[in-house]
Amino acid sequence: MKSAVYYGEGDIRVEDIEDPEIENPEDVVIRVTHTCICGSDLWYYREYDDPEEGSQTGHEPMGIVEEVGEDVTSLEEGDRVISPFSTSCGECEFCRKGIYTSCKKSEFYSPNGTLGGAQAEKLRIPQADGTLVKVPERYEDNEEVLKKLLPLTDVMGTGHHAAVCANVEEGDTAVVIGDGAVGLCAVAASKRLGAERIIAVGHHEDRLEVAKEMGATDVVSSKGEEAVEEVMELTNGGANHVLECVGAESALNTAAQIVRPGGNIGYVGVPHLESADFVNQMFFKNVRFEGGPAPVRNYLEELMEDVLQGTLDPSPVLNKVVDLEGIPEGYDAMDNREAIKVMVKVGEE
Amino acid sequence: MKSAVYYGEGDIRVEDIEDPEIENPEDVVIRVTHTCICGSDLWYYREYDDPEEGSQTGHEPMGIVEEVGEDVTSLEEGDRVISPFSTSCGECEFCRKGIYTSCKKSEFYSPNGTLGGAQAEKLRIPQADGTLVKVPERYEDNEEVLKKLLPLTDVMGTGHHAAVCANVEEGDTAVVIGDGAVGLCAVAASKRLGAERIIAVGHHEDRLEVAKEMGATDVVSSKGEEAVEEVMELTNGGANHVLECVGAESALNTAAQIVRPGGNIGYVGVPHLESADFVNQMFFKNVRFEGGPAPVRNYLEELMEDVLQGTLDPSPVLNKVVDLEGIPEGYDAMDNREAIKVMVKVGEE
Repeated sequence: MKSAVYYGEGDIRVEDIEDPEIENPEDVVIRVTHTCICGSDLWYYREYDDPEEGSQTGHEPMGIVEEVGEDVTSLEEGDRVISPFSTSCGECEFCRKGIYTSCKKSEFYSPNGTLGGAQAEKLRIPQADGTLVKVPERYEDNEEVLKKLLPLTDVMGTGHHAAVCANVEEGDTAVVIGDGAVGLCAVAASKRLGAERIIAVGHHEDRLEVAKEMGATDVVSSKGEEAVEEVMELTNGGANHVLECVGAESALNTAAQIVRPGGNIGYVGVPHLESADFVNQMFFKNVRFEGGPAPVRNYLEELMEDVLQGTLDPSPVLNKVVDLEGIPEGYDAMDNREAIKVMVKVGEE
Repeated sequence: MKSAVYYGEGDIRVEDIEDPEIENPEDVVIRVTHTCICGSDLWYYREYDDPEEGSQTGHEPMGIVEEVGEDVTSLEEGDRVISPFSTSCGECEFCRKGIYTSCKKSEFYSPNGTLGGAQAEKLRIPQADGTLVKVPERYEDNEEVLKKLLPLTDVMGTGHHAAVCANVEEGDTAVVIGDGAVGLCAVAASKRLGAERIIAVGHHEDRLEVAKEMGATDVVSSKGEEAVEEVMELTNGGANHVLECVGAESALNTAAQIVRPGGNIGYVGVPHLESADFVNQMFFKNVRFEGGPAPVRNYLEELMEDVLQGTLDPSPVLNKVVDLEGIPEGYDAMDNREAIKVMVKVGEE
């Protein structure tokens, strides 16, 4: 089969590699129909981290079940399925608590995980009963709906997690820091949870336009102190709900500055920190700080329901489409910020 | 009047200074009857921070109202009152939300605040209606009860805040890091909130004995990796409720290591941090991290009620008593860890 393979900084190639096979009785193998390139894929593309050369890439798979392990009970050949960016058994203590990313059997897709990559024609998925969610049959061939569902593999669930961790509820004012795909999905999630005012903070005019389309009532197009001042002005002294969707230290500092005393910060970007100054800022304001890798599996059904009934549409983040051979071009477009997020239509004739 | 005054590292003197007077119509002046020396007073005593020489000291006052400003409506001369370590108006947005330490009119006692110090014969207290809580008349002269109420000025409220922030509820397992007065009060608070198992982590055998007296079901008498291993063993992989009552980076690292995925850390020690490694540890486990300076005023009535009905007794932390002239000796005893916390009986003949 064909798969995208990592060869170092800025070097992703599409190559022929061996087909994956069932290895354990809880596995399925899917034929990938749709996948994405993620902002987090740029970490290795830019060599901020350094996976093994020759590793497969991608962690956002949607596809059709091709082979079914003998202990899999809920899936059969031909089912159209979505997978979160990590697998989960669905049965352990942490899955039952909804913290699927801490599942005792959790595995992650390549290049940083133990599984194959989703930017490929086929993919083995372990713990298939616990991991996968079926797309109802009537939507199986509706490309428009499938595109809206695709972000539920990662960024829409992650944006929603930011909103949940920031305790966003009906009538609230939420500030979303970051205008990448996760930030934009966090805007949509805040709107869905009933926030009345949603302030998107970023510094790309085109993305802030998408933020408005997805539910932002206000946009702040600046950075650092200037952004802080604008938000403080707009919120009369800080917001009770801040969604930090970047992970950079500067973004956490901004979050700690603009949160109102007694407020909440939800954070979903992997923290990249040199110092901990923002912790003291939070401390003196008695802020609640909660977040982590999104337990996407926990949110998949409820988000899918809203996509299918037409009240949620994260697809505007997918503003470029490539086929499997176009993956290197897709990485390049994201690296150059020409694309917010790239959809890969795999195996399209 | 006599007051304790700061003169640098290890140098606290009791001197004659001018009596405080009513300055604003919302003020009262109290005659201090009881106060304490706090673990946090050791920061300046050891010159980790550096207030102005000649400043008064102490922030945990209990006493009798002597003079009443003309806008004070709820207090009169002769009332026996308790004050939290910070003042609050009781009316602003943050007071109404229970975050009294973020009150827009909040002031703090000396040496680091704008007010006088509580280790003195008299004290001016602003925003008296919002700040002070009256001790019911029938307990006014009951020295045993007064000693139990005294920790409500700070450490008992702070320990309770740790438990509230760590989301301790009926039946829970809580781990308390720190065997100082706040940690011991956090043990009592966890018990009061219904925790079934309370593991106290410290490294002073005598204090861990007090922890048992105050409700600890298990004690771990070690530090660092060794303490982590013991707690992980006792909790079969980490606790859902961790109360960090120290503020040192090592204590926050321990907290982040022993918290269970999806669990809660309440933190009430002012963070003293060089790095932010513990943030990433928390992130990957989806931990909720909440805390700050305790809004003691928010908890004072409910804690007083339980002290008065005999179900809460934080007085074991006050294991040394001095008079006003004995304050320097009291600091010395705390500095040498001969005393957990010192009670100062002011003006006793």
